Amino acid sequence: MLPPPKHLLNGFRVLDMTHVLAGPSATRVLAEMGAEVIKVELPGGDITRTLPVIKDGRSAYFLQQNRGKKSLCIDLKKDEGKAIIRELLEGSDVFIENFAPGVIGRLGFSWEEVQKINPEIIMCSMSAFGQSGELTALPGYDYIAMAYTGMMSMIGEADGAPYFPMAGIGDVMTGMHAAAGIGFALLHRERGGGGQYLDISLIDAYMSCHELNVELYSATNGEVEPSRCGNHHYAVCPLGIFKARDHWICIIALQPQWAGVCKAIGREDLIEDVRYDTNDKRVGKSAEIIDIIQGWLDSMPSDDAIVEALREYRVPCALVLSIGEAIAQPHLTQRGTVRQVHDTKFGELTLPGMPLKFSAFEHNQPMETAYVGEHNRHVLADVLGYSEEKITTLEDIHVLRSDPST
Amino acid sequence: MLPPPKHLLNGFRVLDMTHVLAGPSATRVLAEMGAEVIKVELPGGDITRTLPVIKDGRSAYFLQQNRGKKSLCIDLKKDEGKAIIRELLEGSDVFIENFAPGVIGRLGFSWEEVQKINPEIIMCSMSAFGQSGELTALPGYDYIAMAYTGMMSMIGEADGAPYFPMAGIGDVMTGMHAAAGIGFALLHRERGGGGQYLDISLIDAYMSCHELNVELYSATNGEVEPSRCGNHHYAVCPLGIFKARDHWICIIALQPQWAGVCKAIGREDLIEDVRYDTNDKRVGKSAEIIDIIQGWLDSMPSDDAIVEALREYRVPCALVLSIGEAIAQPHLTQRGTVRQVHDTKFGELTLPGMPLKFSAFEHNQPMETAYVGEHNRHVLADVLGYSEEKITTLEDIHVLRSDPST
Repeated sequence: MLPPPKHLLNGFRVLDMTHVLAGPSATRVLAEMGAEVIKVELPGGDITRTLPVIKDGRSAYFLQQNRGKKSLCIDLKKDEGKAIIRELLEGSDVFIENFAPGVIGRLGFSWEEVQKINPEIIMCSMSAFGQSGELTALPGYDYIAMAYTGMMSMIGEADGAPYFPMAGIGDVMTGMHAAAGIGFALLHRERGGGGQYLDISLIDAYMSCHELNVELYSATNGEVEPSRCGNHHYAVCPLGIFKARDHWICIIALQPQWAGVCKAIGREDLIEDVRYDTNDKRVGKSAEIIDIIQGWLDSMPSDDAIVEALREYRVPCALVLSIGEAIAQPHLTQRGTVRQVHDTKFGELTLPGMPLKFSAFEHNQPMETAYVGEHNRHVLADVLGYSEEKITTLEDIHVLRSDPST
Repeated sequence: MLPPPKHLLNGFRVLDMTHVLAGPSATRVLAEMGAEVIKVELPGGDITRTLPVIKDGRSAYFLQQNRGKKSLCIDLKKDEGKAIIRELLEGSDVFIENFAPGVIGRLGFSWEEVQKINPEIIMCSMSAFGQSGELTALPGYDYIAMAYTGMMSMIGEADGAPYFPMAGIGDVMTGMHAAAGIGFALLHRERGGGGQYLDISLIDAYMSCHELNVELYSATNGEVEPSRCGNHHYAVCPLGIFKARDHWICIIALQPQWAGVCKAIGREDLIEDVRYDTNDKRVGKSAEIIDIIQGWLDSMPSDDAIVEALREYRVPCALVLSIGEAIAQPHLTQRGTVRQVHDTKFGELTLPGMPLKFSAFEHNQPMETAYVGEHNRHVLADVLGYSEEKITTLEDIHVLRSDPST
């Protein structure tokens, strides 16, 4: 087993009772920063161990979200299992869980109980609808929160069905919210503030991402209700998705970039054109602007030539890359936005990098992925000081579980 | 001027040279947690002060992202302006900027220079493409990073144009990434680790949100290339957007919820049906599953009845709410996911709440929004100890600017 990366959370212990995606995204960040993360799995293991790609029993999905974490697999329905958690809480700095609200309390580990065991601990609960409010107990996933907060209503054609991104943006970014809250709570504790409880939810995170829509609705008393309107923005022009030769291309020009657009497309005459010289005017005549730009794109020989022309005048633009094209970009490897990791079963694998880059520590350090219960003995013997005999008994009565095939 | 909210960052000073959205989203979180945030604006002010809704010269867009921050407006082209920044850096805990890479260095405030002025400071740069790699200098915004990282390719119909959410998810969540990095760096400094530099980018944040697509592509050596495929997921069934009576509705069932779906739609016979009893089988016959569920939805008298039936069996679901519908949900007000704020010009305004909820501090505390240069005199006199005479001179030679109409 590799030790935690040398990083700023060395010496911090995180008791991780999260599963699926939002919670593991939070503790993945903590593991990357050198925390000792003890992932508690219930018998059978985190359900994402069954998600593709599976090779020799191991899931690449699970691997990506859980590298660098120790796996402790225990039966929490048994009192001996609960006792292990209680003892681990005593020596942990952080306790994080993302069961449906209410479950952790029924297991005996509500914040009320946890702070009795360890008043200095930072406890973080993550959920779809949060720990308070009339809908707290509802089950939910990423896209449920996206729909409920109005975010999903902002994607697609005005007269068509809404869409969602086929990626767990909401879960992963809510994980970063939890990690942030934990970091600040640890800072406060370091300064003598003691332990506390964090309530992080997908709906809070999604709602805060409405930088414009909510105030626009509220400040106009509902006269303007933002809604999906295709792939050109309703309030900025040009800002949208055009057709290049082989790809779609996203082009954005706020006022400072408008002159650059005109130069790039060989229409310097438009810079001073009073029909188009402010964003408001361009939004009012957006069909004309889009036609002019699309006409230029259609006249160009290649996507490379298009991108080169726009970049020459510093117009923000990007081809809409496929997943394969994106991860093959040299720039992304150069800065560790993607990285090669080694796994005993998969060999070399390309994965997203750690998104926080600190100058004082090496980025994207090597880590391994545990099988179900791989660290049962290590945690009980080295962390809790259990005797060999006691551990063997716990195995015999199936409080401890493990599955080296995962 | 209200003092910072009583919260865990009281006593920390943040020198904030960010503008537009990603940077201000980071420092907004710091301000909510009680930091003293001194926002440095260039003459004319943050460009978002011109974004809608404008009332009596004030922008609700600017207001939302910049409550609780002091405004210091100085001409950085003048040496006297740069001198003010140098002096503020000496007494700040955090320095954050989101100019295009290279600009801050040309202003004289690269990390190399900043750490000479204050080796204990945490400096954070935010950008679209990051501070390293061959494309570092490219201009970019949220959707540019979304396109470049493959995320945009995952939204829309397989044979149609891609879409983007009409909301700044990328900017706001990258702001939370920066806030998180700053929190952990401050924790490290508190433990004797000294200052350091953070490089936070939109592309790193977006790439890390591919929880499945990248590993799926990589682990299959490109044989499976995930791509947009409408509004039903390619790997889970049922997971998608259906048509209810008056709304679209998002319904998600992983394996543990499949039986609940069958019961909710009155088809308990399907629970044990060997054609549909695993997710893999359902994905293989997704058109059949979608038809069955859509048929049930079509038979229901109202959206309320649909939601009630699904909730009874704990099937994760949500109507795709509009912005106005979303912010009117009592649950969101009950837990502060949205909040009423008071502004001198707008009066009462509904805005998204602070997404981090700490048990030790009050949530969503009152804060005010500064006009351009509102705190020039306060910062120079009370923070830097400048004399009245010196401040007046700086006003006379236009190093200091202000505009009370904003």
